[in-house]
Amino acid sequence: EIVAAIEGLLARRQKPLAGKTIVMTSGPTHEPIDPVRYIANRSSGKQGHAIAAALARLGATVRLVSGPVTIPDPEDVTVIHVSTAREMRDAVEQLLPADAAIMVAAVADWRTANEAGEKIKKKPGEKAPALQMIENPDILAGVGHSKSRPRLVVGFAAETQDLLANAKRKLDKKAADWIVANDVSHATGVMGGDRNAVRIVTRLGVEEWPDMSKEEVAERLAAKIAAALQTVEV
Amino acid sequence: EIVAAIEGLLARRQKPLAGKTIVMTSGPTHEPIDPVRYIANRSSGKQGHAIAAALARLGATVRLVSGPVTIPDPEDVTVIHVSTAREMRDAVEQLLPADAAIMVAAVADWRTANEAGEKIKKKPGEKAPALQMIENPDILAGVGHSKSRPRLVVGFAAETQDLLANAKRKLDKKAADWIVANDVSHATGVMGGDRNAVRIVTRLGVEEWPDMSKEEVAERLAAKIAAALQTVEV
Repeated sequence: EIVAAIEGLLARRQKPLAGKTIVMTSGPTHEPIDPVRYIANRSSGKQGHAIAAALARLGATVRLVSGPVTIPDPEDVTVIHVSTAREMRDAVEQLLPADAAIMVAAVADWRTANEAGEKIKKKPGEKAPALQMIENPDILAGVGHSKSRPRLVVGFAAETQDLLANAKRKLDKKAADWIVANDVSHATGVMGGDRNAVRIVTRLGVEEWPDMSKEEVAERLAAKIAAALQTVEV
Repeated sequence: EIVAAIEGLLARRQKPLAGKTIVMTSGPTHEPIDPVRYIANRSSGKQGHAIAAALARLGATVRLVSGPVTIPDPEDVTVIHVSTAREMRDAVEQLLPADAAIMVAAVADWRTANEAGEKIKKKPGEKAPALQMIENPDILAGVGHSKSRPRLVVGFAAETQDLLANAKRKLDKKAADWIVANDVSHATGVMGGDRNAVRIVTRLGVEEWPDMSKEEVAERLAAKIAAALQTVEV
């Protein structure tokens, strides 16, 4: 009996997220211009998928809404595959309530105002068209302000400049608890690559994490999420 | 000696494209909007890569300029990886002269007029931007009208309507010998799928090929290219 109790304690220690449901997004979105053209974000889904797998290893029930990626579904994670920001928003809403929402996807800010049903043709002598864009739903802000807001809401901010100022602004505007900011300037090689250097921006301040593999970022972030969800709600 | 001669004949029969150089393109192009966003065509590269492999099996020296795809390089083919239409055009020009040019890539007709060096930000209260487009180089027409024009120039036309009329117009405008027309309407499942139904439009008329796998289209087209290059030039 003592052995069983100790084993139970050990198991719980290794699975600190057992019984918790976590909604996640990962990857880019593709916004159609016409049947053959689309606007996309550069996002391999590597960081988001690694976080989903790490959370599942800690015992969480993870439901991941993934945009179009070429990497395999993470193990022990339920994956919903979508293409556009609107589809991603709808899928996330369906998955609330949850204990936490970790929104890693690089959602397109805009889509074309008029999606064409047929391929837009080049017309001889005519000027190239202008694509009028309209704003896409802000999925992170939607979750942050939702009536079924999860206790912990984490967003990602990919920036090429003014990283911290932009991340802090997002914290408020989107009603998020943490913003994980990463610099995706060309020179950093973060986009599509296997390494990442992130800063965790919270209302208390900024945690700077050293450059590490996306796997390590995932492990460390999953542990931080587990710690946050183990605190007693006041 | 007789055996050697027969073996030589057989080998030549199996490698009818030995000694021929063929320039190819395959896949989509990605046209950057800013460091994190781009405009893309839906193209897996499956059909073009299969044709490159089939031509190599017939003995041709194949140089393939590939846009961003997630499939492996075809066997026994030299592959040059590019991203934008301008890079693809430059790579193709470098590879001329050649005996044939088979242009399968879904090249973006347009790119944004002003690529932004930093991520374009959403501004609160501001309308979404309009993307002014400008025309990309027409790689097929460039090859067709080139001083180093290959003897056989083949273009692909992905259409969702007026397939034949559009293909015939392209034959003239781009100075191509054949246009391989395929219907990429959503319902056909051609884009990203493993099957294809094509029509070969030449100055003599239209050959309709039945629905078959992209592998079979590749084999059959490679045989047709071999036959065309074996005719005596007049």
